[in-house]
Amino acid sequence: MTLWVRCQINDQTSYGIVADDVIALYSGQPWAAPLPTGQSIAASEARLLTPVQPLNFIGLWNNFHAAAAKHGYATPEAPLTFLKSPSSITGPDATITPPPSYTGRTLYEGELGIVIGQTIRHADEATAEAGIFGFTCVNDATALDLLNADQSFPQWARAKGCETYGPVGPAIATGLDWRALTVRTLLNGRERQNYPVSDMIFSPPQIVSMISHEITLLPGDLIACGTSLGAMPMRSGNTVDVVIDGIGVLRNVMG
Amino acid sequence: MTLWVRCQINDQTSYGIVADDVIALYSGQPWAAPLPTGQSIAASEARLLTPVQPLNFIGLWNNFHAAAAKHGYATPEAPLTFLKSPSSITGPDATITPPPSYTGRTLYEGELGIVIGQTIRHADEATAEAGIFGFTCVNDATALDLLNADQSFPQWARAKGCETYGPVGPAIATGLDWRALTVRTLLNGRERQNYPVSDMIFSPPQIVSMISHEITLLPGDLIACGTSLGAMPMRSGNTVDVVIDGIGVLRNVMG
Repeated sequence: MTLWVRCQINDQTSYGIVADDVIALYSGQPWAAPLPTGQSIAASEARLLTPVQPLNFIGLWNNFHAAAAKHGYATPEAPLTFLKSPSSITGPDATITPPPSYTGRTLYEGELGIVIGQTIRHADEATAEAGIFGFTCVNDATALDLLNADQSFPQWARAKGCETYGPVGPAIATGLDWRALTVRTLLNGRERQNYPVSDMIFSPPQIVSMISHEITLLPGDLIACGTSLGAMPMRSGNTVDVVIDGIGVLRNVMG
Repeated sequence: MTLWVRCQINDQTSYGIVADDVIALYSGQPWAAPLPTGQSIAASEARLLTPVQPLNFIGLWNNFHAAAAKHGYATPEAPLTFLKSPSSITGPDATITPPPSYTGRTLYEGELGIVIGQTIRHADEATAEAGIFGFTCVNDATALDLLNADQSFPQWARAKGCETYGPVGPAIATGLDWRALTVRTLLNGRERQNYPVSDMIFSPPQIVSMISHEITLLPGDLIACGTSLGAMPMRSGNTVDVVIDGIGVLRNVMG
């Protein structure tokens, strides 16, 4: 298992592998044959950035049996997807700042993120799984009162795409068995979400495969797998941790 | 007025300015202080590519008074937006190819595209207008039967995001007065859409300004301004031209 991070060093950014509180730096992207630079920095001193800058940042709605049962949603025939603006992406420790014009509720949604490692097009499940580079944590923040502000048109792009509404990180873990993962979300340290990835309606390989038949996925693309029970509003000053053992803690503060 | 194109030259791509059937080549992007290379090629011999590769490719629904009146849509209070996958983008003369698994209808939608020239964030209308680099033609193709394939969730990301469902081009025109533009769409040479940009519910500067309060727009981003009356299905073998005088003819064939 390897933990990749992306960090700021002076005015440069660099990928690196974390082990024993040391980040060994690499040139290039983790999924594109990166080379070690020979340099390293202390992890405790690093400023971590989002580990991905995807072209396609795809989210899922209604992908957990427990949440579907509670809310009375039918089981979908295919992943129900929306796109998050790349402008929404931010990193660990960044502040989630609502748009100045928005005074409504913002939900946290702790989620497993799939990081794509190669171009994936019309792939079967085995090929799709082989094309997954690793997994990360995503807080798929949602401006809930924008979503249905217009009766005629659900505004997923606005509600999900606001600047800073897509925290990602702290790392990309490779070699993890997604079947064994649990996603937990803590609001001010209190656990509000705790659900197993195995409860997904569509598994990561199924999601990647089915999407790839319509949208070609590219190296570095990111798919947030949807959330389960316990997504709730954040208030100004709240700290939100999305925790997946094996990946780490994605901590952000609501501004 | 300047017409920027992006073209393939051997295994390289390059931006250039078109005049009198000659493309004068530039290094760098048109909105980022490009430099003339001193080289030029005959426009008639150039293979044109999409003139933009945006991070944010934003589309609008219900942005024309005439279409709203015909369909009985209420006038929205803000632009009703969706995101198109960057993987949907293709260039002039490219084939629009439905996903192999999709046998439903695909609509053409001829539209004016706004090309963003600088980072635009929380901008008033005047600042937004100054941040527009130019305009292009977009065919906002739509896999109509995916849109409402699930009763509980309108699937805009799927219906609008399929590979090749976002033809853009043939050029970016700078210095155009958008108020005077007309968008026409021809199916096999027969005019099916002909509407004035002045009928927009939200004008280009209003669209850019309002979006920028929530989603930071980046140089090279693309906003398709929505379509008006006359969007209809394309059949295999059909030729579709989106024509905006001053920009050019965006021609694609349905595969």
